[in-house]
Amino acid sequence: MAEFELIERFFADLAPRGPGVELGIGDDAALLRPPPGRELAMTLDTLVAGRHFLSDTDPEGLGHKALAVNLSDLAAMGAEPAWALLSLTLPEADEAWLAAFGAGLGALARRHGVALVGGDTCRGPLSISLQLTGFMEPGRALRRDGARPGDHVFVTGTLGDAALALEGLLAGVPVPDALRRRLERPEPRLAEGRALAGVASACIDLSDGLVADLGHICEASGCGARLEAARIPRSGEASKWLEARGDWRPLLAGGDDYELCFTVPPERLGALAAGGIFCTRIGEMVQGSGVTVLDERGEPLPPMSGYDHFA
Amino acid sequence: MAEFELIERFFADLAPRGPGVELGIGDDAALLRPPPGRELAMTLDTLVAGRHFLSDTDPEGLGHKALAVNLSDLAAMGAEPAWALLSLTLPEADEAWLAAFGAGLGALARRHGVALVGGDTCRGPLSISLQLTGFMEPGRALRRDGARPGDHVFVTGTLGDAALALEGLLAGVPVPDALRRRLERPEPRLAEGRALAGVASACIDLSDGLVADLGHICEASGCGARLEAARIPRSGEASKWLEARGDWRPLLAGGDDYELCFTVPPERLGALAAGGIFCTRIGEMVQGSGVTVLDERGEPLPPMSGYDHFA
Repeated sequence: MAEFELIERFFADLAPRGPGVELGIGDDAALLRPPPGRELAMTLDTLVAGRHFLSDTDPEGLGHKALAVNLSDLAAMGAEPAWALLSLTLPEADEAWLAAFGAGLGALARRHGVALVGGDTCRGPLSISLQLTGFMEPGRALRRDGARPGDHVFVTGTLGDAALALEGLLAGVPVPDALRRRLERPEPRLAEGRALAGVASACIDLSDGLVADLGHICEASGCGARLEAARIPRSGEASKWLEARGDWRPLLAGGDDYELCFTVPPERLGALAAGGIFCTRIGEMVQGSGVTVLDERGEPLPPMSGYDHFA
Repeated sequence: MAEFELIERFFADLAPRGPGVELGIGDDAALLRPPPGRELAMTLDTLVAGRHFLSDTDPEGLGHKALAVNLSDLAAMGAEPAWALLSLTLPEADEAWLAAFGAGLGALARRHGVALVGGDTCRGPLSISLQLTGFMEPGRALRRDGARPGDHVFVTGTLGDAALALEGLLAGVPVPDALRRRLERPEPRLAEGRALAGVASACIDLSDGLVADLGHICEASGCGARLEAARIPRSGEASKWLEARGDWRPLLAGGDDYELCFTVPPERLGALAAGGIFCTRIGEMVQGSGVTVLDERGEPLPPMSGYDHFA
């Protein structure tokens, strides 16, 4: 099957609708009409087999995740997703694999109003690059550099489930479905991100682990953060695993959470509460630099780094 | 060296300026302000080691080519390039390699006013995904579907040099610098593309070979094309090689030309001539389907397919 047939057959109908699409898949470039008076938020992420996912991950989940990690970046800016381009490198043109991958990607795209407007396919070691564009009201984006000492630190959802699932899969032990789903089908926090625009002073999505990612907010904002480990929200499954092991690492340094970590100035806590977002206060921003994590007795835990794609 | 240091150190300063860049590398997404009243042309291409380039290709050339192939897509639409996102997968964090890659990419980006606004890096088999956005006046884009029987077919520049260079390199024979440069440092035809907006009825860039790529114009436009092989423009180097071998394939089915192939209605030939574009008439669009190539005696050459990334 030729390259162009591949693209057109599997991807053109996945998610053809979207705002401002003048010309989608099938030409040298897509033609798009941005809405007047909006800024664009643009992100590009690559998932590599054996690095970001296990080679035997089911293709439907992979299609979901390739889009979800980019949607999570837009969620962290408070943007509304619109257009995607997909570049797929495959060891072989396997139609069943492509159909399942497309089903996973297409379902999530339709759910969030994303149109797949272009891209390419080629043969090589399995990897997926996806570029996503969203819309923003000018000046409302949730950047990393707006946190100040005294701001409260929050996270959405629960942390550590995906890291525990990955650890279980790598060790070959049974992994509860609820944990596995967090690893393979992360749900990007788009509604939460949009609700935080104008409320949060800084925001980041958690892909490399809480300490590492909050560390980027600290660095960009020129201050530090102090967290209380016991406040970090976790699922019932994660609590059970953690009790048995007594190890904070999955909550603090595990990757793939795809929750939002954000800071809120004291005077905007009321606005946050009014927004009805499921989130938990885990600490505060302080003078200084870096992230300090205190245990139940108020003693600092030893430093731990996050997931580093070159580690 | 951590992932974020890699990105920031090597890429943030490569090409920081560009129109409408509110926020570049270093947050969850780039923030961009499109100019009022313009359409966007967006493309994403991946280059895979061993598939699109030889693994020992010099990194400076690779940086150039990764951007050039995307610029060529925008040239084929008649667009003006503006913003790039880069996703780089590397077997190791080699600073010398990155510096050379960045130098090649940055030089071409600055030459065409492209700002590098985001992306990511990760570890894995060498591959490069680059996404590029350009601006268009609405309704002026050079699409593939506007050719009609009776239109003349043109190509810019000369064809076949890159294919001959690749063949020589693979065979381990000496390759003249002029040919090798066409393979490793293609010059995207951006000025030509912009000059063709409003003149050409259809346009495509030649990445997979003349017959295959013109075939896409035929398919999208619902007609055929008839070419005269002897009219296909070639360099002095390519002429010498071809004379010795008597084989048309590099001109007709070789990849990596990155010239433009376009069609012009008879009534617009005057406008084309006025544009001063270096191009050659090689045939015409006809009723029917597919591309027929005639030899010097007017006999059709046997069918030959282009470069297929899944062949």
